[in-house]
This record gives sequence, C-alpha cells and structure tokens, in this order.
Amino acid sequence: MSVKILDGKAAAEKVLAGVAERANALTARGLTPGLATVLVGEDPASHVYVGQKIKKCQAAGMVSVHVPLPATITQDALLAEIHRLNRDPRVHGIIVQLPLPKHLNAEAVLLVLDPAKDADGLHPSNQGRWMQMKSWKDVLASGVALPCTPAGVMELLRQNDIPIAWRRAVVVGRSSLVGKPLAMMLLAADATVTVAHSRTEKLDDICRQADILVAAIGSPKFVKKEWIKRGAVVVDVGMNRTAEGLFGDVDFAGAQDVAGAITPVPGGVGPMTVALLLQNTVQAAEKQLL
Amino acid sequence: MSVKILDGKAAAEKVLAGVAERANALTARGLTPGLATVLVGEDPASHVYVGQKIKKCQAAGMVSVHVPLPATITQDALLAEIHRLNRDPRVHGIIVQLPLPKHLNAEAVLLVLDPAKDADGLHPSNQGRWMQMKSWKDVLASGVALPCTPAGVMELLRQNDIPIAWRRAVVVGRSSLVGKPLAMMLLAADATVTVAHSRTEKLDDICRQADILVAAIGSPKFVKKEWIKRGAVVVDVGMNRTAEGLFGDVDFAGAQDVAGAITPVPGGVGPMTVALLLQNTVQAAEKQLL
Repeated sequence: MSVKILDGKAAAEKVLAGVAERANALTARGLTPGLATVLVGEDPASHVYVGQKIKKCQAAGMVSVHVPLPATITQDALLAEIHRLNRDPRVHGIIVQLPLPKHLNAEAVLLVLDPAKDADGLHPSNQGRWMQMKSWKDVLASGVALPCTPAGVMELLRQNDIPIAWRRAVVVGRSSLVGKPLAMMLLAADATVTVAHSRTEKLDDICRQADILVAAIGSPKFVKKEWIKRGAVVVDVGMNRTAEGLFGDVDFAGAQDVAGAITPVPGGVGPMTVALLLQNTVQAAEKQLL
Repeated sequence: MSVKILDGKAAAEKVLAGVAERANALTARGLTPGLATVLVGEDPASHVYVGQKIKKCQAAGMVSVHVPLPATITQDALLAEIHRLNRDPRVHGIIVQLPLPKHLNAEAVLLVLDPAKDADGLHPSNQGRWMQMKSWKDVLASGVALPCTPAGVMELLRQNDIPIAWRRAVVVGRSSLVGKPLAMMLLAADATVTVAHSRTEKLDDICRQADILVAAIGSPKFVKKEWIKRGAVVVDVGMNRTAEGLFGDVDFAGAQDVAGAITPVPGGVGPMTVALLLQNTVQAAEKQLL
C-alpha cells in the first residue's frame, strides 16, 4: 500500500480559484471585496505571513488594505484602529496578525472586531455560534466565519474524499486556534473525537486508535511512526523552524511507511489557511449585498 | 470498595448558600439581583422546571420577574420581550426556558439576549469567550457566564475532590447544552477528553477507558455496568421519564457495583443546574457594581 500525499497547495489553489470567481462577480456588481491586514511591530515571521496574505489577496482580485503599526502602540490606539477599520466601507475582512507584542491584549482586540468582518474566524461570538450547530452541513450552510486553519483541514479532507463520519479522530493539541475548534468540527462531522495534549498519559496508545490523527502541538517530529495505525490519515499542522530546517509535528519520514494518507510540511495545511482567510473575506462581502 | 454517591442536593445547597450571601451583600448596597424567567406556552415539564427556579431564586433573597407568554407568540414579539428585559434595571439575569414551540427560532433569541444578562450561559459570545481560554482556572476567574449544567458537573466534581487533570474523560453525548461544553471544560481542566455519541462504534470499549465517564445522551439506562472501568467516576446527566419512572442514562443498579463514585438520578446533576443559574445571576449583578 502506498501512502497518499494530501497536497495542500493544489487544494488551496482550488479554493482560491473559487474565491477569485466570487470576487470578480462582486466587482461586476460594484463591490470589490477588501481585506485589511493589521501588523503590529517588526516580527520577521509575521511579516512573511502577512506578505503572503496580501499577495494572494491581490491575486484573487481583492483589495488589500495594509495597516502596519509600531510595536510601541498602546492598547487604546490599537482598538481605535480596529474601530476605524470596522467602519471602513472598503474593508470586508480584518485580520490582526498574532502574536501581538506582550503589552497588548489580543482577547480584547478580538472582542472589538466587528463579527461581520472577522476574516480569521476568531471572534468569540462567531466561534460560539457555529459550535452550537448540530452538524457540519449546518455549519457550512450558516455562512458564519470559521477559524481558517481548522476549516482548511476540513476542506483538505473533503477534497480528498476522506470520510469522517463514525470514524475515530484524535487531535493532539488543544490550542484555541487549531486543536479545540478542529475537534468541534470533526465532532460536527460525526467523528468520535479525542483531544489529547503534551501531558496526556499513554499518548502513543491513544494515537494508535485514530483513523484520523491530527498533530497540532508545536513540537518537531513529536508524533512517531509507531504511534500511527496502519492506513490512518495523518494531518500535520506543525510548522517548526529548527536549525536543521522546517519540520512538522510528525516524523514524516517514518510516518509515510504506515499512514494511508499524510499532509506534507510545507505544502500541506499551511496553504489552506490563507485560502480560507480569503474565502471568509469574500463571503463577508457577499453577505453585505444580501 | 464501596461506591461514593455524589450528592448533588448537598453540593447545590452549598452553592446556593454562597449565592444567598452574595445576594444579601448586594441588597445591602442597594442592588437586589433579579432573575427573569421567560416561559412560552404550556409544556408541563417546563412549568415545573421554571417553578423550581423561581422558588430557589426567592429563597436566595433575589427578585423573580416571571414572564409567561402564549404558545402562539410570534418571533418578533418574543424578541421584543427580550429587548425589554435587556433594558429592565430590575433584571440581571434572563432565562428563556427551552424547548420553545417549533415556530420559534431559539438561536435568534439567544443572539438578541444581552450577553451581560445571560443567566443560562448559552449566548454564543459567552461560550466562544470561555472556550478560548487556556485553563479552567482562567475560565472561573474570568466571570464569563458558563452554561449551567456542565458548570454544575464541574462544581460537583470539585466539591467531592475528584481530580481531573491528566485523567481520561469520556463524554457520551454531544449536545450544545451539555456534551460539547462539558468536554471543553474537562479539557480546560487538563483531562484528555473523548466525545462519543450514540452512533460511535465500540462505544463500550471507549467508555471502559474512562476515569471520568459522563453520560449525557438522553436514553434511559443506556450505559451498562460492563462499560465502566472499576473505580471510575460516573456522572449521569440523563433525566428520562418513562412509564416505569424517572431514570438516568446509566444503569445505576449495575453501575454502583463497579464505579468508584456515581451521581444518582434524581439528586445528582439536576440540582446543580439551578444552583449555577442563580450563581450566574448574582455574578452578573455584582459586575454591574464594579
């Protein structure tokens, strides 16, 4: 049995093609969707990520409104910028690149963001809304903005015809950005879901129960070949930069011998995140025309 | 080894004593906390539940504002009632007794409710907020209104000194009222958490892995003695009225032979729900004075 590589670049291109089509249709109706990117300070990795988002935004025929702010900005001044963007008619989606400098409160920033312009799908009100829905079909039909990385994983599985219902899913990691929302999405799609974390006892045993194993723990090559059930689908959300290079949370070289399907790093989940961000933005603009 | 009965009536009395003390302190400062109970239609079980809430509310020295509405009320008229209660200065917590008649949209009602008066802890904005927090300690310290039944389970475990961190918890049931939020709470408290449901394969095997087993599936005596690991803590959220009487989701007679601790039905989780509702209300009133 040979392993199937779940190609996130190809899947993201499909999503982006749909986004570009929808953006063009909106432009033809006089409303070009716009994405505001708020970047506080000079963190090099954040600059790279925001640069990629702006490039993809423009490539999809959308307006990019970039808002670079000094690392020394006060909480009040940052909130004032968000309020300004909430009112800016050019802007249909807003992202605030995380992490923020330590003196700033990210939760308060998210609460001030207009939930209708929540491109990252991180506003608590949006998260609470879709988490209360009964099925994944309902969630998708609702048009509520979803957090980009976990929604990107779901779309990658869908495009690759990977069944979720009635299967065992194990999510290693419980962050607000990935682990917790992805667990809730897999559950909405009728999986039986276990959320484990770095201090879980017998983590290897638990991982071996998974038909779908998600690693989102932020530790290079953390998940070993021996933890993977033969034929399992392995989704690697990790992006760990080390002296030896960029590694996921899964030992890919070993894992590909046993997994039925696996996402590479890079080129797996990463490209899906940006694609879903733009999809949230075009969807927000469409809602304005309803 | 004899089984420990987790007495929800006693635990609820402790919570209610604290609520009464806090309500008296507020009254002494000129602000008596008030709970509005919105009851649409004539469902007998709903009338009983609301009656219990009003009684406990008055016993705790709080004001009860009861709002009975006809089963024929329109969605708009119901929303107008909620807006009125949002503005009513006597009212610090509002509950809308569920289920609503079928022509009414409960999600839209919850969205209109002022999140600061969310006595049931069901407003999506509140749910999203606490679910994004890193630890159960942070959640409790935040003062965000929590959904009453799962928060009641957590308080019952706390009062009985049942450790949660690093243990395996299995929640059978994935409702928005209980299963999903309780899974997120146990996870915040550092458990490794599996959410299973009625169509989960090998459900008995999964349940046997649980140190803490929660049944919230709405099916009488669904969880069998053989599914329970010796010494496990069993929490029964079920309240199933049958021709033979009231039963939980666990076969209590069998389960008490193997469990280390178990909640009875009635007298287990049920009384905690009402106690937490009043605690949310007094907490909302306290916040108004901050």
